[in-house]
Amino acid sequence: MIEARHIEALKSLLGEKGLLTEAADLTAYETGARYDRGKAAFVARPSSTKEVSAAVAYCVGNDIALVPQSGNTGLVSGSTPDDSGRQGVLSLDRLTGICELDRVNRTVKVGAGLRLSDLNGKLQESGLFFPIDLGADPLLGGMIATNTGGSRFLRYGDVRRNTLGLTVVLADEAGTVLDLSSSLRKNNTGVDWKQLFIGTSGAFGVITECVLNLEPAPRQTATALLVPSSGEQVPTLLVAMEEALGSYLSAFEGMSGNAIRAALDHVPSLRNPFQGGIVPEFVILAEISRSNPPRDGEQPLDGVLEEVLAALWEREDAPLADALVGPPHEIWSLRHALSEGVKHMGRLIAFDLSFRRGDIMRFLAHMRAEMPESFPGITICDFGHIGDGGVHFNLVVDKNDLRLADAGFEMALREWVFAVGVEEFGGSFSAEHAIGRKNQAFYDKYTPAEIRLLASGLKAITSPGALGAMTF
Amino acid sequence: MIEARHIEALKSLLGEKGLLTEAADLTAYETGARYDRGKAAFVARPSSTKEVSAAVAYCVGNDIALVPQSGNTGLVSGSTPDDSGRQGVLSLDRLTGICELDRVNRTVKVGAGLRLSDLNGKLQESGLFFPIDLGADPLLGGMIATNTGGSRFLRYGDVRRNTLGLTVVLADEAGTVLDLSSSLRKNNTGVDWKQLFIGTSGAFGVITECVLNLEPAPRQTATALLVPSSGEQVPTLLVAMEEALGSYLSAFEGMSGNAIRAALDHVPSLRNPFQGGIVPEFVILAEISRSNPPRDGEQPLDGVLEEVLAALWEREDAPLADALVGPPHEIWSLRHALSEGVKHMGRLIAFDLSFRRGDIMRFLAHMRAEMPESFPGITICDFGHIGDGGVHFNLVVDKNDLRLADAGFEMALREWVFAVGVEEFGGSFSAEHAIGRKNQAFYDKYTPAEIRLLASGLKAITSPGALGAMTF
Repeated sequence: MIEARHIEALKSLLGEKGLLTEAADLTAYETGARYDRGKAAFVARPSSTKEVSAAVAYCVGNDIALVPQSGNTGLVSGSTPDDSGRQGVLSLDRLTGICELDRVNRTVKVGAGLRLSDLNGKLQESGLFFPIDLGADPLLGGMIATNTGGSRFLRYGDVRRNTLGLTVVLADEAGTVLDLSSSLRKNNTGVDWKQLFIGTSGAFGVITECVLNLEPAPRQTATALLVPSSGEQVPTLLVAMEEALGSYLSAFEGMSGNAIRAALDHVPSLRNPFQGGIVPEFVILAEISRSNPPRDGEQPLDGVLEEVLAALWEREDAPLADALVGPPHEIWSLRHALSEGVKHMGRLIAFDLSFRRGDIMRFLAHMRAEMPESFPGITICDFGHIGDGGVHFNLVVDKNDLRLADAGFEMALREWVFAVGVEEFGGSFSAEHAIGRKNQAFYDKYTPAEIRLLASGLKAITSPGALGAMTF
Repeated sequence: MIEARHIEALKSLLGEKGLLTEAADLTAYETGARYDRGKAAFVARPSSTKEVSAAVAYCVGNDIALVPQSGNTGLVSGSTPDDSGRQGVLSLDRLTGICELDRVNRTVKVGAGLRLSDLNGKLQESGLFFPIDLGADPLLGGMIATNTGGSRFLRYGDVRRNTLGLTVVLADEAGTVLDLSSSLRKNNTGVDWKQLFIGTSGAFGVITECVLNLEPAPRQTATALLVPSSGEQVPTLLVAMEEALGSYLSAFEGMSGNAIRAALDHVPSLRNPFQGGIVPEFVILAEISRSNPPRDGEQPLDGVLEEVLAALWEREDAPLADALVGPPHEIWSLRHALSEGVKHMGRLIAFDLSFRRGDIMRFLAHMRAEMPESFPGITICDFGHIGDGGVHFNLVVDKNDLRLADAGFEMALREWVFAVGVEEFGGSFSAEHAIGRKNQAFYDKYTPAEIRLLASGLKAITSPGALGAMTF
């Protein structure tokens, strides 16, 4: 599809290793983490900011569209090419050169191609960690471009909160390099430009390096499974735990009985922790942690948690039906198995929603009541982050369901869920997965005209070239 | 200066109370918190977003420049008119209508004209608070427009981190209202537009309402004054305290002996807490706190702090020369008196700098060594926020010093401090006071051309009308 002279030119800019064109080499870069599959004109793999700049400038000058791709673990088709075969993939996977820890500043400067687990591995001896906890193991550039959240948002916030500086290449004719690579924690000297590149899927520029905030790693952790006496009592539990535990509380996750059952079925080695093996309809995973080593005379965290739960038991409004304090590893194993478990139940149609914290359980109750009539034969297997309002609203359809052959079915289902979640409940159609081709139609629908106008204006002044999987 | 018909038109839009033109009424709005004094064409005081929109649209349509003004407590001439008499002040002080607490979500939606102390007063019974702790008591709109930091940044972050949503009026011909008033904690559905209005002094739009994150209010606090055995040992103390105390640590402030002596001289009721009344050359204020009520069996915070300090005493590298655990009220009284004390020593030339945390003490040592030769007769009275890298680098000149009559003196001094602080040490010329006329020259000097170009492009697509005290 693409002219040979362009391939030659890019090869001379990036070297042999820096440009892939063989079909076998492209496959991994063309295939998204969930269902989507595109066709790449080539994969460019620059190994430095300078090479990114050269490649981007060449492509802009020659009208070649680029889709930046990081770890390719995203779920919204934000990092894969479409099926036209005309888009090149710009992979960050060789941008791994730098890793400069500043222990006193509690920051690290790294290349955008470093993997999250590799970063935390390198940090292990320092007692610090990058506090974004995810099911996937992405590269850092993509984590920033999608502003990932995860399970400990309640305590540590999102990637946005933990990003101090960026180096970005703009898709203009010069491949302009923006040096926003501050290591300062307080700095108010104009527009905080890095914010525009966080959570916008690479459409306004390619992130090549970043300076990240680090936090003292937890050294003590206690976890419990809480069974609320009803969905309506979940906010009561959350508020009570925050009041009693303050900054100790590091996770407050919700898990539907359907999701738990799917995990137990799919991973037989998981222990079923519930009395008589009967999985409740909704379960909270609560985690508390602290970063200091245990001190003499200090009450162990398990004891703190048990004491707080005992006080919840005694409340007259009885928000708690059951509670089990257990080893963190075991309890998180269950939580981490939910996603795989749900995937194996059938065809997954997944939503990444968020609400005001008081609205999540109301939304879920509404959907459990309405779904059987509106879309019969669909199983709701939600789980998510009650503490920050996020919910992975997973719908599972039997693989043999004939409706799956109808292209309009999934879209109708999505429209209906968003009509309730976004329009009625004031929620977000993308809580923590950001936006890509999969959300484009809903971005267009739910973004007011004046905001869309601003976004296209911003695109024109930053990266007028074709960059990214979606259109602002 | 301004035509009478414009005054009449604005009056008809805003009502009698909504427009001030009498010289006596204007004075307070023309006078900044520190030295600066301008001349206003009028003061517009809209009482709703709709009125802000109408007034802004009228002014843009008639080429009338507006300077948004909030509590007018800022220190960079960002909210007062210049001395041309042609700029109107757009005051937020009547935008106090709304205050909607969402207890479960831990958020509050408020008008931009609400005062910080009033907000926290309204929240008292909820057990929550807006965790930005400042010397001044500004209105919320201005806090957002300047992204204030303060003394507990280390624990709670800045205003940016605690702002969930905004309502903004653009200075375009329509006075476009941007509804960015989300109460969601996780929401990744495109550009996070609110970020552009945070810390940019109202140049890109007028903030009229906001949705803020609230935190559980601290219920237990312990404080200590730490005397480091040398300036070089301060980072060691900081890292050790973070390792031992984790999320308990809520302030780690630095105070120079000069600033402490100024406070003790100026406020005779302050108790001098130091042995023999001898003020050390540098002192750290450390605060730890937690938001749960004391529990039986839990070690009191004073005891936790004493234990951690005892461990510091035993270290072989001896970072600590002295330490005094004392009542929080008393210890903070000293910290809060520093600013007033320093002001009374003479003419204050103040800098709001920040550095990587490991560089602050190196910068201060450098300045203490070099100042006597480069600018003799100047007293360095710094204090600030070691925990986040911020330092109020205050220079005091005797009021009768003849150099003060020379307009070039202060500028030469500023240029020299920034040449060292910004160019040599990689610091920020505005850590937490944001930018205004006072910083304009340094914004122009230290902002790379490609960023200035982006800023002017952004200005053109958001608020092309003349808005704000500075020029992007």
